[in-house]
Amino acid sequence: MELVLPNFLEKRAQISPAKMAIKTETSSITFEQLFTRSKELAYKIASFGIRKGDYVSIYMENSLNLMELIFALKNIGCITVLHNTRLTVEELTYQVKDSDSKIIITDEEKCSLLQEPWNHSFVYSFSTIDNTVKYEEVPIQHEFNLSDTDTIMYTSGTTGFPKGVKQTYGNHYWSATASALNLGIREDDCWLIAVPLFHISGLSILMRGVIYGMEVVLHTKFDPKKVNKAIRSEKVTIISVVTTMLSKLVDELGEESYPTSFRCMLAGGGPVPLSMLERCHEKNIPVVQTYGMTETCSQIVTLSATDAISKVGSSGKALFPCQLKIVVDGVEQGPNSPGEIVVKGPNVTTGYLHRASFEDGWLYTGDIGYLDDEGFLYVLDRRSDLIISGGENIYPAEIESVLQSHPDVIDSGVTGVEDEKWGEVPNAFVVLKSGAKTTKEDIMNFLYDRLAKYKIPKRIMFVDTLPRNATNKLQRRKLKDLLHQNGAN
Amino acid sequence: MELVLPNFLEKRAQISPAKMAIKTETSSITFEQLFTRSKELAYKIASFGIRKGDYVSIYMENSLNLMELIFALKNIGCITVLHNTRLTVEELTYQVKDSDSKIIITDEEKCSLLQEPWNHSFVYSFSTIDNTVKYEEVPIQHEFNLSDTDTIMYTSGTTGFPKGVKQTYGNHYWSATASALNLGIREDDCWLIAVPLFHISGLSILMRGVIYGMEVVLHTKFDPKKVNKAIRSEKVTIISVVTTMLSKLVDELGEESYPTSFRCMLAGGGPVPLSMLERCHEKNIPVVQTYGMTETCSQIVTLSATDAISKVGSSGKALFPCQLKIVVDGVEQGPNSPGEIVVKGPNVTTGYLHRASFEDGWLYTGDIGYLDDEGFLYVLDRRSDLIISGGENIYPAEIESVLQSHPDVIDSGVTGVEDEKWGEVPNAFVVLKSGAKTTKEDIMNFLYDRLAKYKIPKRIMFVDTLPRNATNKLQRRKLKDLLHQNGAN
Repeated sequence: MELVLPNFLEKRAQISPAKMAIKTETSSITFEQLFTRSKELAYKIASFGIRKGDYVSIYMENSLNLMELIFALKNIGCITVLHNTRLTVEELTYQVKDSDSKIIITDEEKCSLLQEPWNHSFVYSFSTIDNTVKYEEVPIQHEFNLSDTDTIMYTSGTTGFPKGVKQTYGNHYWSATASALNLGIREDDCWLIAVPLFHISGLSILMRGVIYGMEVVLHTKFDPKKVNKAIRSEKVTIISVVTTMLSKLVDELGEESYPTSFRCMLAGGGPVPLSMLERCHEKNIPVVQTYGMTETCSQIVTLSATDAISKVGSSGKALFPCQLKIVVDGVEQGPNSPGEIVVKGPNVTTGYLHRASFEDGWLYTGDIGYLDDEGFLYVLDRRSDLIISGGENIYPAEIESVLQSHPDVIDSGVTGVEDEKWGEVPNAFVVLKSGAKTTKEDIMNFLYDRLAKYKIPKRIMFVDTLPRNATNKLQRRKLKDLLHQNGAN
Repeated sequence: MELVLPNFLEKRAQISPAKMAIKTETSSITFEQLFTRSKELAYKIASFGIRKGDYVSIYMENSLNLMELIFALKNIGCITVLHNTRLTVEELTYQVKDSDSKIIITDEEKCSLLQEPWNHSFVYSFSTIDNTVKYEEVPIQHEFNLSDTDTIMYTSGTTGFPKGVKQTYGNHYWSATASALNLGIREDDCWLIAVPLFHISGLSILMRGVIYGMEVVLHTKFDPKKVNKAIRSEKVTIISVVTTMLSKLVDELGEESYPTSFRCMLAGGGPVPLSMLERCHEKNIPVVQTYGMTETCSQIVTLSATDAISKVGSSGKALFPCQLKIVVDGVEQGPNSPGEIVVKGPNVTTGYLHRASFEDGWLYTGDIGYLDDEGFLYVLDRRSDLIISGGENIYPAEIESVLQSHPDVIDSGVTGVEDEKWGEVPNAFVVLKSGAKTTKEDIMNFLYDRLAKYKIPKRIMFVDTLPRNATNKLQRRKLKDLLHQNGAN
């Protein structure tokens, strides 16, 4: 028998109708109001011909409207495809086509931009939908089947072609409860979202809010001053950050401190450096480091604040319902022996859209790490083809594939370079056709039209040849040596 | 793909090895020690020929040993059948045979009693197993399949024949997390068990302890003085009680009060009377009322302490992953309309041993109740054939079936009578063969050999005839009238 749960928000509205669900800088809404709104919105969306089982693309910045929309689509029984708003139209087109979305819903400002390549009955601004007087009372989904896909987020892989990660209702529920078994749940908890909702780090907070019956505070953009104010005077108890955000928060905090009610700074996207941990320790800021990815529906490994200093550099242990092993050539490794990080758990995706499911439930992350004698994970290297820049994942193969579509480029290789502000930024090596007159600026302009800004290489270097092995595979690690020869770092 | 989780205790021992798992009056044990012990015990049990998939009967009082044994059997992959220690040998025999258990493990004191009817290679005292020098290293189950049966507890139904309720690993996990979404989880939580582990109220606390990583305090028997001491000076934050226990605790407490760290008195087994709620309210005792049964693997409906007075008499709302409806003749009822209470959720049993599963996941409880306008459940009547006496469920049909096996009895009917000490006690009406010389005392002695003491009717009344309808079905509600005619209450 399939496992079903009641519609998350409808159920939460029944249990805690008057409890505050979401606060933004300008408005606030209870769980009952949120459900009522999401139901009305569902009827409006349905009037545009959207039905259960349809894929719907969303290309919107953080807002209360986006949150309402996310629950409206669940009410109809749609699969919600959340796109990074920093994508170019070309990148977005690929994902929308791949997901076979029936419509795109976007912010007002971006709407005309998108309506140009597509027709008007395919791209709608949120306000067009919200302002419609049409109303089609489709059946509201009162139950969620845990194995049904709820949301999809795209990540790129080694091929350079983005793949849609399927997140089921079960993945979201298990992820929320796994986190609860680790961090606990308190009546007065309030989790601040200052990361994008189109990333799993943001969306998972929203899901926890509804599943726990917990207030969520939404910031449209990350502003250290506003975040510190929310923690210091607006009763925020937990916030999710990436390392670069943490350092900005501590800088902005200056000589001030957080109230004792603030209980967790959940830090993802790579280990926090010891110097930063020591600063946080002095200021009594409880930093809980975590390792996770879109495919694990948020956290899968976490390090408690009490272990932060003694286990510096570690991401912690796998959450209660999750398993982790280190594998080299199919063989599980013992303690202190590095290999590929392989994970399993009910929060782990069953697979990518249009691709076969993982048969035995184990996800090969591509990341390299080891477990110490006590079972703490140390991530040595994110998959060699991954650059993490200000919390965004950048896949070199994707940039290379665009570079190589330029008529004068015959080969290219992209690698990450340390950067004080962003953690890492991409750098590109380009081999031009002999005699080509193309300049670095030409290449940059070519990329600007085709890649999200955060993916644009900070530096382009022309070289005669790239390190490739006998089977012509690019040797990514050797690109780092090439960098040094070219005077970087 | 089946959902699997890591072995609960093994995983907990990896995450929180040094954390206190269980404290009794004489000893204490960490999660790592508990797992090590449960593993050794598994090897010892295996040396008696017990293997994965075997059913093992347990007939033991609350003790640390019993807790270790429960986890040892999970390590092997056995199905654990937990029997009420108040059962007579005859009652136990029925359940053991029905479950097809391979052995019975019992306390030392009860061992010789049980070895009499059975042979010595079928009944073992716990100490015989624990003292063996044999050791068979069977594979430890590192994963639990959530749809596999973990434990079995017997309840009687309308037929008088006890049925084995299957509780899967998933039922236990979902029950624990559903409770967490309601009560929260705090780092300093400590849950006191003063109810039997062979009941779901006790076992579910032990499971929560391991799933949450929470300390559990075990009392062998309920002693109000000791319980109050544990709450007042041993940092207990939550305790599960039935109404009779609650009143004894409040009496014993006298002018004293509980510390503010004490956060939940979880009260099951019928609504708490208003006068008691008011006494608790005055003393700042947070009473959380709950409705649940063996089939729902503990709580399924709860009333928060803040709603206790305004919703007096209510059991509250269905937990987050659970659903509830009121049904009359297959038709779902609206607010304030009474009918049968029907529940669904991932914590609800998939069915009884040797019987078909519930097809659509809805469990018909047999209890009568209604929902108010805000969705709060009011239980009007436990199934008419159920007597709840001091937290134990008594099924009249079971007593009647024993009565009718007496050679001089031609008909019988049992019903519950209010009792100050026990809440309710059974009373029996008996129709004798004409001319029979059997006395009430004879009948009592007959019952004592065949029924657990708590099931023995407090009073036996000889009558000429019983209220039966046209199809000869006993009209239980009319037995109440008969009681009044016979001078009770």
